[in-house]
Amino acid sequence: MTGISLYPVSNLPLIEPGDDLGSSIVEQLAAAGQTVQPGDIFVIAQKVVSKAEGRLVRLADVTPDARAQEIAQIVDKDPRHVQVVLDDSNEILRTRRGLLVVEQKSGWVCANAGVDRSNVATPEEGEEMLALLPVDADASAANLRQRLLDLSELDAETKLGVLINDSHGRAWRVGTVGVCIGCAGLPALWNQNGLHDLYGYELHASEECIADELCAAASLIMGQSNEGNPVVLIRGYQPPAHLAATTARIIQRPAAMDVFR
Amino acid sequence: MTGISLYPVSNLPLIEPGDDLGSSIVEQLAAAGQTVQPGDIFVIAQKVVSKAEGRLVRLADVTPDARAQEIAQIVDKDPRHVQVVLDDSNEILRTRRGLLVVEQKSGWVCANAGVDRSNVATPEEGEEMLALLPVDADASAANLRQRLLDLSELDAETKLGVLINDSHGRAWRVGTVGVCIGCAGLPALWNQNGLHDLYGYELHASEECIADELCAAASLIMGQSNEGNPVVLIRGYQPPAHLAATTARIIQRPAAMDVFR
Repeated sequence: MTGISLYPVSNLPLIEPGDDLGSSIVEQLAAAGQTVQPGDIFVIAQKVVSKAEGRLVRLADVTPDARAQEIAQIVDKDPRHVQVVLDDSNEILRTRRGLLVVEQKSGWVCANAGVDRSNVATPEEGEEMLALLPVDADASAANLRQRLLDLSELDAETKLGVLINDSHGRAWRVGTVGVCIGCAGLPALWNQNGLHDLYGYELHASEECIADELCAAASLIMGQSNEGNPVVLIRGYQPPAHLAATTARIIQRPAAMDVFR
Repeated sequence: MTGISLYPVSNLPLIEPGDDLGSSIVEQLAAAGQTVQPGDIFVIAQKVVSKAEGRLVRLADVTPDARAQEIAQIVDKDPRHVQVVLDDSNEILRTRRGLLVVEQKSGWVCANAGVDRSNVATPEEGEEMLALLPVDADASAANLRQRLLDLSELDAETKLGVLINDSHGRAWRVGTVGVCIGCAGLPALWNQNGLHDLYGYELHASEECIADELCAAASLIMGQSNEGNPVVLIRGYQPPAHLAATTARIIQRPAAMDVFR
């Protein structure tokens, strides 16, 4: 049987600000007797991308303002953490005890603007760090893709996908799933309008978010805490050949088109 | 490298009401030299489950009432189709041109109550059929699981997952992704509260929807139109060993807890 396979890129070193993530990936592939192959798709956890890019804030350095303190009361979180969330948000969508849903600066609607304090530093007193989303995760994905191509001596036209994933909660459904916040070398969406099904019916309003499905699949291997497996290699998936690569930003539903804001 | 693999169960016959879907799956596996193995997870497209269960309505037999006609005007859909959607819904959440989001009778929040007219019959005049969601997709999954076990002479304690997936749109994000509406033999959710990350931080509010991620992954092989590959076999995924199997209904966020209704 031929199908799709997902593998962890194991034994990556702990990523620190300034680290060359692409190089670490290629090295650990080599250690497993593998190389980057045309058609490969790498899904990379947002947290390691943010760490490599130095998107870190030391909690002890944050002084919450009055608004952050007020919202911290409502949502029952550390006011300094709330301040960091607000600083990286365009708009607050919902607040409730335990819940702070915003539109993050690059447009993603998610809890806490994707700011997370786990997995970013040792929990020594005064040294707690928060990791923010990359400033432009599409650019992060494109840069990582180019780095993987360069290190593998493959040209820029090579089919190679790099996706950056994060775990997001959803309206209506319990639990988080992996979604795509950065995309390079792949089409994020597959618009099937105008195609016909098995029986000749034209498909309407059919647009599949391939990038989110790939990121959800990869999350099964990462585990939500991203411990040990922040990079997943997907082999055997071929996106529809007629589709050009896109950014992940096209997945963002414009606020004016969104009836659930 | 060891990881997770997804395979289409190819060459399934077109499913008709009353068909033994479990038997067809085992037969086509056998034709590919395979058998059902402990640890296997089968993801099955809702449409073929609904067809096998006879959850079909002939469009020509439907007489829309005044409310269906009024809503059909707003959403710009066939009033008969709208009537079928309303008949299988608890509540309308949003209407807009091209959009009708409801809470379907078994509790799923989705467009058109999951009612779809593609892939259910040849498009002869007067013979257009609509497929509704299964009455109880968790029961459908449990029945299919038992049938696969029986046909494979495996006992009821065997680790074997059966998930029923559907393609749902999302708030905030463009495009549909595969989600789980029926679950048997697997835990749908992995609550990680209380676990610690790599650095010793306790994970809070961390609950991963494994079932949705598996269904999203399988959708990559099905394609949204489910042409030809309505059944996907996933091998190599092991849910956390301490978790008991659950239904998919536990994924439904209670309306009172949902700030996006």
